[in-house]
Amino acid sequence: MSEQLTKRSENYSQWYNDLVARADLAEHSAVKGCMVIKPYGYAIWEKMQQQLDKMFKDTGHSNAYFPLLIPKSFFSKEASHVEGFAKECAVVTHYRLKNDPDGKGVIVDETAKLEEELIIRPTSETIIWNTYRGWIQSYRDLPLLINQWANVMRWEMRTRLFLRTSEFLWQEGHTAHSTSDEAIAETRQMLNVYAEFAENFMAMPVIKGNKTANERFAGAIDTMCIEALMQDGKALQAGTSHFLGQNFAKAFDVKFTTKEGKQEFVWATSWGVSTRLMGALVMSHSDDEGLVLPPKLAPIQVVIVPIFKNEEQLQIINERVASIKKELELKGISVKYDNRDTHKPGWKFAEYELKGVPVRIAIGPRDVEQSTVEVARRDTKEKSVYQMTDLAIKIEHLLSQIQDNIYKKALDFRDANTYAVDTWDEFINALDTKGGFVQAHWDGSPETEQKIKEMSKATIRCIPLNNRQEAGKCILTGAPSSQRVLFARAY
Amino acid sequence: MSEQLTKRSENYSQWYNDLVARADLAEHSAVKGCMVIKPYGYAIWEKMQQQLDKMFKDTGHSNAYFPLLIPKSFFSKEASHVEGFAKECAVVTHYRLKNDPDGKGVIVDETAKLEEELIIRPTSETIIWNTYRGWIQSYRDLPLLINQWANVMRWEMRTRLFLRTSEFLWQEGHTAHSTSDEAIAETRQMLNVYAEFAENFMAMPVIKGNKTANERFAGAIDTMCIEALMQDGKALQAGTSHFLGQNFAKAFDVKFTTKEGKQEFVWATSWGVSTRLMGALVMSHSDDEGLVLPPKLAPIQVVIVPIFKNEEQLQIINERVASIKKELELKGISVKYDNRDTHKPGWKFAEYELKGVPVRIAIGPRDVEQSTVEVARRDTKEKSVYQMTDLAIKIEHLLSQIQDNIYKKALDFRDANTYAVDTWDEFINALDTKGGFVQAHWDGSPETEQKIKEMSKATIRCIPLNNRQEAGKCILTGAPSSQRVLFARAY
Repeated sequence: MSEQLTKRSENYSQWYNDLVARADLAEHSAVKGCMVIKPYGYAIWEKMQQQLDKMFKDTGHSNAYFPLLIPKSFFSKEASHVEGFAKECAVVTHYRLKNDPDGKGVIVDETAKLEEELIIRPTSETIIWNTYRGWIQSYRDLPLLINQWANVMRWEMRTRLFLRTSEFLWQEGHTAHSTSDEAIAETRQMLNVYAEFAENFMAMPVIKGNKTANERFAGAIDTMCIEALMQDGKALQAGTSHFLGQNFAKAFDVKFTTKEGKQEFVWATSWGVSTRLMGALVMSHSDDEGLVLPPKLAPIQVVIVPIFKNEEQLQIINERVASIKKELELKGISVKYDNRDTHKPGWKFAEYELKGVPVRIAIGPRDVEQSTVEVARRDTKEKSVYQMTDLAIKIEHLLSQIQDNIYKKALDFRDANTYAVDTWDEFINALDTKGGFVQAHWDGSPETEQKIKEMSKATIRCIPLNNRQEAGKCILTGAPSSQRVLFARAY
Repeated sequence: MSEQLTKRSENYSQWYNDLVARADLAEHSAVKGCMVIKPYGYAIWEKMQQQLDKMFKDTGHSNAYFPLLIPKSFFSKEASHVEGFAKECAVVTHYRLKNDPDGKGVIVDETAKLEEELIIRPTSETIIWNTYRGWIQSYRDLPLLINQWANVMRWEMRTRLFLRTSEFLWQEGHTAHSTSDEAIAETRQMLNVYAEFAENFMAMPVIKGNKTANERFAGAIDTMCIEALMQDGKALQAGTSHFLGQNFAKAFDVKFTTKEGKQEFVWATSWGVSTRLMGALVMSHSDDEGLVLPPKLAPIQVVIVPIFKNEEQLQIINERVASIKKELELKGISVKYDNRDTHKPGWKFAEYELKGVPVRIAIGPRDVEQSTVEVARRDTKEKSVYQMTDLAIKIEHLLSQIQDNIYKKALDFRDANTYAVDTWDEFINALDTKGGFVQAHWDGSPETEQKIKEMSKATIRCIPLNNRQEAGKCILTGAPSSQRVLFARAY
């Protein structure tokens, strides 16, 4: 805790890198583009996983596991899919090493060359749909609602911890349905699950919408997404849910017998969120003192720090804390008591601020006498003296208040940083001076979208669901438009 | 449910393959040696994971995540480690595909060749100890107690679902300590955790012991293991815990400053169990009708099947079942109610026997009238009529009885199939006619051990902990021996 973090106002990007490192979330590994997720970072990811997993199961999905490696030829079976992923594939070509005859070390054994190269999965549609061919015969086998928690690999040249790494952790849902309508409903349902998770657990407001054709997943008919706004005014795609139509069923010949006895191709969806959410979480709420974590995802929700001058005082405090801790834990609150004598209280305060622990309780000998504690909340930095009576109920209430406040703050920020513009100059000006979400008219053509992207570095994040219909003119071409779409520069 | 499983007595190996397939646990994938873990199999693995994860956390460990890929040169740093794993490594050599100029499909882009090849982790000691160098400076950073849940790859030519696959799922603990004693204590503690898990949750008795030098993990000073006996009389290594000494600390230059200000190398352990445990679970308890699952790991603990002739009867039963289900779930029992009208009760009975559901409740209109249910237990196939009064308490008790009974049955089997032999003829005879664990004297030399293995196909499974000291003569060489060791043919 010797050095300060870089301030957000000075260098937002450096602030993020500092914070991820200093809060012990993750670090770069010896393998280019691959990260190490450190225990504290992983503990937050586990909380995310547990909640998402519960939500998937509550909506009828089961987990399964498919191979890490995919035969190269599988990728070619769906034309736009291979186009989307071929350039970032890690390729396994051999299956054995041998001692280097010239000296030290090991070399690849050229006699152990694979007949067909294997690709480390960048996503699993191909291997999963190849498997589903054996699982689906009749309408009775549908819907098939499967999720996988896995690592995937997409070779990246420029990486940032959590936001863009060659290997990342994620979940990928892959469902199979007998009708187009049912698959579309599933696509929407899972988008709603993601939005609910983002808003109610990550305390991160999101806009739900559809991607334009240019921004669709490789192989999808429609890609839906949730988009969040970070504190530097850049957007972040936080989750996607794809309606795949019959593309993968056709590529892998997956048919089913309908109730009427006909053979039809199966309808598909896929949907995923990844460790990228960790980056989104950090950038949504944290400040110049460190992480700000929503209580629902904080590995430690309450830290208790004793204030003592000698062993005798510590003993008295220890006793009181034991009962406080027990009371809080009975309410399901996760508590850490840090009574190390190797560090001063001030050091500990700064450390747990850095780590984003939502509530800090400080307790000294006088507090024990007077049946009080000092309670500090991480989000507002307010301190108050609490009476011991019903302490657990009060802390539970406070955690809930913090959760709500963090969400509200992020929502207010987004509202304050969403602009409607009508001309190209206004558009560029908004992006350059304010950042944020920019609502603007677009003529609907992929070419115009591409030109806008090249000229402004902003992309269409989505066409929001239930978007207001409103006649206007495209900011670039002046051609007529029926609605504003959401632009931003993005991560 | 049309066909019967192959009987164990006819062909044990085929029975296992049939059962894994028919109970929907796993199947071979399109990628040689890699399996698909199906939803029902994965649900059992998730139960195992949750329990083990809890036990690791209760003993002070945190989870983290390290890269899938390891630079080839890392393997060469620990001499015996590379020796052990080089021959089964999947090697990544390129990071891009491109369109085949000659026509269809994609080919490896030769311009995207890695400078140094990357290995898909067969185990993570090397990448983790390379990382620990940055995490450990002082005795204050120790012990470092980390676990990782991950997929690993060891190229196998002959594979069997769960028992031996090229890719498998596992956890690997990697801890760092300031003293040899502490690391040895950790090695033992984790062996005990595994033994407790095997016995109390998998209901599978195990023998704890030390591996001989020949059978040690590549890079370990000492390998401890738990060994279980399958129903065909073959042994299965169910978990290992390694004391690594300072081997990896020296290979990756990981030193710490002691309290006295000296620089010393760090002491290490690693320990792991894998999806192989799924194979052990299947082979320990199951029978010719299907899986027998211990209640503590069964995804469905109780299945309820209605017996009805018409919709009206079903309505009445549905109502009663709703309250039974609720009552059981309040006790934390997982219940499935299968009231599909597409399948007959007999079909359902067979299906849930195949799936190993520990308790089946059947209920018909007369049961509703008389406030009874018919309860069948999977392990003994006994049926009884239960009064509704306190049904949840009775079922809870029954589940606990089943858990105990399965364990006892496996223990009795092991006891009945453990033989002490004193001569080579007795040794071979025991292995050939009875299988099982064979306790025999061995002169302690690696050469003799190797010869015995070649001549009998049996290996020393372990030298049991607290082994009785007893003078004798080696079954092969006649040289003096101070204790019997545990031999078996093994998976």
